[in-house]
Amino acid sequence: MTAEVIATDALIVGAGPVGLFQVFELGLQEVRAEVVDSLPHAGGQCFELYADKPIYDIPAMPYGTGRELTERLLKQIEPFGAGFHLDQQVNALARRGDGRFDVATSAGKRFVAKAVIVAGGVGSFQPRRLKIDGLDRHRGTQLFEHAAALHQHAGQRVVIVGGTAAAVAAAIAAGEDGVAAAASVTLVHRRDDMDADEETRARLNTLRSAGKIEFVAGQPESIVESDGRLVALTVLGSDGESRELPLDVLFVMLGWSPKLGPIADWGLALEKKQIVVNTASFETSTPGIFAVGDVNTYRGKQKLIVCGFHEATLAAFAIGERVYPERAQPLQYTTTSAKLHKLLGVAPGLP
Amino acid sequence: MTAEVIATDALIVGAGPVGLFQVFELGLQEVRAEVVDSLPHAGGQCFELYADKPIYDIPAMPYGTGRELTERLLKQIEPFGAGFHLDQQVNALARRGDGRFDVATSAGKRFVAKAVIVAGGVGSFQPRRLKIDGLDRHRGTQLFEHAAALHQHAGQRVVIVGGTAAAVAAAIAAGEDGVAAAASVTLVHRRDDMDADEETRARLNTLRSAGKIEFVAGQPESIVESDGRLVALTVLGSDGESRELPLDVLFVMLGWSPKLGPIADWGLALEKKQIVVNTASFETSTPGIFAVGDVNTYRGKQKLIVCGFHEATLAAFAIGERVYPERAQPLQYTTTSAKLHKLLGVAPGLP
Repeated sequence: MTAEVIATDALIVGAGPVGLFQVFELGLQEVRAEVVDSLPHAGGQCFELYADKPIYDIPAMPYGTGRELTERLLKQIEPFGAGFHLDQQVNALARRGDGRFDVATSAGKRFVAKAVIVAGGVGSFQPRRLKIDGLDRHRGTQLFEHAAALHQHAGQRVVIVGGTAAAVAAAIAAGEDGVAAAASVTLVHRRDDMDADEETRARLNTLRSAGKIEFVAGQPESIVESDGRLVALTVLGSDGESRELPLDVLFVMLGWSPKLGPIADWGLALEKKQIVVNTASFETSTPGIFAVGDVNTYRGKQKLIVCGFHEATLAAFAIGERVYPERAQPLQYTTTSAKLHKLLGVAPGLP
Repeated sequence: MTAEVIATDALIVGAGPVGLFQVFELGLQEVRAEVVDSLPHAGGQCFELYADKPIYDIPAMPYGTGRELTERLLKQIEPFGAGFHLDQQVNALARRGDGRFDVATSAGKRFVAKAVIVAGGVGSFQPRRLKIDGLDRHRGTQLFEHAAALHQHAGQRVVIVGGTAAAVAAAIAAGEDGVAAAASVTLVHRRDDMDADEETRARLNTLRSAGKIEFVAGQPESIVESDGRLVALTVLGSDGESRELPLDVLFVMLGWSPKLGPIADWGLALEKKQIVVNTASFETSTPGIFAVGDVNTYRGKQKLIVCGFHEATLAAFAIGERVYPERAQPLQYTTTSAKLHKLLGVAPGLP
């Protein structure tokens, strides 16, 4: 496969709040950035897990959801026109002879970058898998981890495994009349203690009472196949009995598990699976590779977004010096600097 | 003089953005704080110099004025009910035998604090003074540095020295009809290059043309007194001639100059007049005294508000451990922690 190679000043791995603010701070240093994220949207864990949940500890934002935080950051970085490459993971990184880095993603995108910033949060988010022999080969055809696939399987027999809010939402979508309505819906979880607010629980119970959703308390054990197709899931019930649940499509929605992923193989100094950085530049043990946000570690580290914002800021200064040493100049302020106003695309004194 | 002594967990010196956010982060650690500032209002330099000027680099706040930033932070810290002691400087600090600190302010307030946090920005803001023999003794009666005093001197002969935006605003307020209207207004600045936007400049010029404001280009040299009262300011004009400007009241509005002030005498390790801190806790060389924001220094330091927010955060964890070691517990998140929701006074899931 040949792919266009994107040459960039900086490649940011991770589009969470800290990765997004990294774009901003690099922009003020006139460093252009491209951003890669394994999720299909910007905002990272904050958007994936807290889109509609309140966050109270972003400075000067007394209250906001993960979605609002993401939207504000996206607006803030607009002037810098960073390229976003979503729904793909960085899976290869190699240092070139000229000190730059070759980077490739799982979607076949290729970059050459003068600096790489790992803003990977707790790592790339991977759906938690069900460890059952032979199950994985049905992924993408009969096995899914995203509710998005639900609509393509309307009218079929759906089994959903998991007690997460996403599992409940999927069961309701498949159980209620509508575009995703299934022929049958079975929800499997070890106990009847789903992660749902009162209103959602009430909707779920209504559908269960109406026979539109069957709930099975138990643990998936194995699969039944026929002619290479998945035809049933065997569940060991909490009553000790095994049951076969016939199905056309299986949704495993056990939540997300963060994994450092291929970054673990880049040769960076790690401590308890966190990337060791120095607190002056947030550079890793490999010159030119930086790590900001929850993925890094240093003395006093707290995994808070407010800390990641600072880390991205100091990293940007260090990267600016690395990428454009000839441009080095004293700190300027966005309130007063005509140069920064120009970069931000604002007339002085006007919003 | 005897004064009530306020016992507190933490005393924050400085009510700028970083000092305010320090209240928030301490609050999450259940550490109560009192705040002292030399300015008569919260917001520090940001409010004093940039109240109506745009700031673009606060994370997730694509645009805001110093006033808005201050207001948002004040709203954010509301749940923690910190005491504010404004318009006074901390002028004495002493370590007690029990490890706490005795602190006294220029207004006679006294505190006993388990931890002291210097969030002093570039130091306490002092109005730049006019160095003229004998002038200082008129301060508060005929000599002022704040426009607030203008209203108390309506109908009098006003001389304003300075080319700052505040000087121009004061001249306009005194020159236009209104509660602050003066008998005469003379504005003195070395050159005709006032710090004013186009609209303000137009208003100033209209008042000059109408004879309501006289502009004198020159440098104040000396004062004329009679019976202990200030009666005129002598100015060496840019034309080389000296002139006496008769006056009832003199406003010197040359801007603000930050001074480390008495903090310089606390025995803290300094480097180029900045307080040396370690980057794990932002503690100074004196255990129990912390420094956050523009006043501190460490390897990689940038004088940016976003960095101060981080510093205040890590300092709060260290102070929490110092003040209440028995409460130490793993990091909790405002999105999910019932305990933090209680401290913030919010019902889970509700703004």
